[in-house]
Amino acid sequence: MAKKMNMVIAQSGGPSMVINESLVGAVLEARKSAKIGKILGAKHGILGILGNDYIDLKKVSPKKLMAIAETPSSALGSCRKKPNADDCKAIFEEFKKLDVGYFFYIGGNDSADAARIVAEEAEKANYPLVVYHIPKTIDNDLRSCDHTPGFGSAARFVASAIKGDDLDNRALGGVKIDIIMGRDAGFLTAASCLARNAEDDGPHLIYLPEVPFTLEKFEKDVEWAMKKYGRCVCAISEGIRDEKGESIGAKFAGGEKDSHGNVQMSGTGALGDYLAKHLKSTGKVTRVRADTFGYLQRSFPGVASKVDQAEAFAAGQAAVVAALKGELTKGTIAIVREEAKKYKVAFAPVPIQNAAKFTRSVPKEYIAKNGRDVTPKFVEYVKPLVGELPKCEIF
Amino acid sequence: MAKKMNMVIAQSGGPSMVINESLVGAVLEARKSAKIGKILGAKHGILGILGNDYIDLKKVSPKKLMAIAETPSSALGSCRKKPNADDCKAIFEEFKKLDVGYFFYIGGNDSADAARIVAEEAEKANYPLVVYHIPKTIDNDLRSCDHTPGFGSAARFVASAIKGDDLDNRALGGVKIDIIMGRDAGFLTAASCLARNAEDDGPHLIYLPEVPFTLEKFEKDVEWAMKKYGRCVCAISEGIRDEKGESIGAKFAGGEKDSHGNVQMSGTGALGDYLAKHLKSTGKVTRVRADTFGYLQRSFPGVASKVDQAEAFAAGQAAVVAALKGELTKGTIAIVREEAKKYKVAFAPVPIQNAAKFTRSVPKEYIAKNGRDVTPKFVEYVKPLVGELPKCEIF
Repeated sequence: MAKKMNMVIAQSGGPSMVINESLVGAVLEARKSAKIGKILGAKHGILGILGNDYIDLKKVSPKKLMAIAETPSSALGSCRKKPNADDCKAIFEEFKKLDVGYFFYIGGNDSADAARIVAEEAEKANYPLVVYHIPKTIDNDLRSCDHTPGFGSAARFVASAIKGDDLDNRALGGVKIDIIMGRDAGFLTAASCLARNAEDDGPHLIYLPEVPFTLEKFEKDVEWAMKKYGRCVCAISEGIRDEKGESIGAKFAGGEKDSHGNVQMSGTGALGDYLAKHLKSTGKVTRVRADTFGYLQRSFPGVASKVDQAEAFAAGQAAVVAALKGELTKGTIAIVREEAKKYKVAFAPVPIQNAAKFTRSVPKEYIAKNGRDVTPKFVEYVKPLVGELPKCEIF
Repeated sequence: MAKKMNMVIAQSGGPSMVINESLVGAVLEARKSAKIGKILGAKHGILGILGNDYIDLKKVSPKKLMAIAETPSSALGSCRKKPNADDCKAIFEEFKKLDVGYFFYIGGNDSADAARIVAEEAEKANYPLVVYHIPKTIDNDLRSCDHTPGFGSAARFVASAIKGDDLDNRALGGVKIDIIMGRDAGFLTAASCLARNAEDDGPHLIYLPEVPFTLEKFEKDVEWAMKKYGRCVCAISEGIRDEKGESIGAKFAGGEKDSHGNVQMSGTGALGDYLAKHLKSTGKVTRVRADTFGYLQRSFPGVASKVDQAEAFAAGQAAVVAALKGELTKGTIAIVREEAKKYKVAFAPVPIQNAAKFTRSVPKEYIAKNGRDVTPKFVEYVKPLVGELPKCEIF
């Protein structure tokens, strides 16, 4: 693509604490290139393209951009729309008018799939378009990445929250249930393990969607923890499933679905309340409390992981570099951890399909055999992504 | 009290992010005095005294103590026990054996009342005991204090959380309900106002227990906000009451009570879910989510307000200074804001009754006439207690 073309960038899916780092990384990289003309930020993902609603990102000062980079949530706004053929047709008409040759879409697997659809439809329509997906998801479930931008910061929030909550539980005792985001993958819940320091620190029980959850096992596990520690902090994924593989939380969540077919799970405390009520009903424990960490996990300002921030920025830059290189015209940025003693990653352009639609789960080697914990191997995996937590001291 | 006597210090009630500052402030001050012999930290409040369970706080290094000061939750453990005459008799037997002449109890109004009971029973029993309550409560509802240690840090968490959540709501829209701690007083919910910066920043609606809450008014207010802002973030106290003054949340909370007669409110998402379900049932709004901030408000590490930390430490010191002075033998530390342009407070010993049992509510001058917001006067009151929030930038 020798001719100077304009670019559109947008954000999609659930916000994260560092999705704006990727936006700004891409924008500042694009501003360096003579091949790129206008840099248009579409508001609310492809809805902004369909509604002709843009911010001219060449007109925003670098200082303001850097402040936006450090701000949680999606500064351009987001959406959960899966484009159909008609949408794509409208998008290309719009792109043609605006001379758009580059399209960047920052998001998770559904957003990668949306970008894939746009890319494939563009090919069918003979519209010349370089499409890059930039990875983002607190769920850490993209198949193309060792870990995803957004995960480290959400994990840092979760580990900090469990750390504080464990101290709270030390003071007043009983059973504390904490429900953590992650519809299909348990990575974020698993990261609660980083709250541990002393031998008797919580979380004492960790439940992931990858391990069938039964009330019977839960009761027994709580009994074990109460006997061993005299108290019990449980980190439980909102996505836990029964032995038939059916989501337990979805039954309480009202059945709302987005256009990718995902059931809404967060934004309700029902699963935690159900589990707490059940434990109380056994009569074996008296003080039981449940908290659902909810949207704070992806939006709380001031707790982002520095490593995550830097990587999200770099992923945005890498997408623009790859798009300009032009070898791969429908890509996503893979994050690859290099085999070395010191933590180090590389950013590699790979086909967009690698990130789209299907997700990955927590691998078996990261799940303890007792089904209620993670392995030391997982701790090793997740630690460098999160950074040091605030120091806490006990007697 | 010329003779060298030993002292007991303990923590009671709900933990906070800075209650250990008060503990360490008192302990380090006591360590300076030749009048005080042993410094015993009773574990889990008066339960530790009754169970003869102490930590020798003279043996803990200042370095470790300072690290504990910065750690959230009650490092000695807590309890919610109201002592009766028999408990007091047992306490004095224990104190006599241990040569205890000073007793410090860090907590809220119920803990002040427990300390008052101990002090009055000691007088009846002719047991010479100086008793000081050290103020702590995230609820900010002690009558003896302009504001209470613990409140500023919890308010900082709440304002930060609402700030991030408002950014999240900007991205995906709809109505967001956030349930905030405070059974009787709405100070913490009111502090959510500090999340506002831009004209259209949330919270757009703020509901306190001090203003009767009806579903009809709530619906109308949400409609107003949706029309004005196209979205709506609501900060709602867990303690909101209906027109008869009855708690709405208590109906869903299972009816658990502590020995002071307080109904358990936190540790459940039921109120938020109820309000969200109701809003959805009206059919006027589609995307409605509810989060209950829960115990993170009082325990999250790394977000404490610096002013709050310093004041909590100073309140602990002031109690020991006053106890040693001996003019007032049954006291609490009042925090008085001095009338000056620059924020400044004084710590004054006052009779323990001033903090005990009865609480204060958010004064009328802090509540907006429309019943869904706070006044600029409240913003002025609360701002210096919380400090600057992390910078956030929007397009």
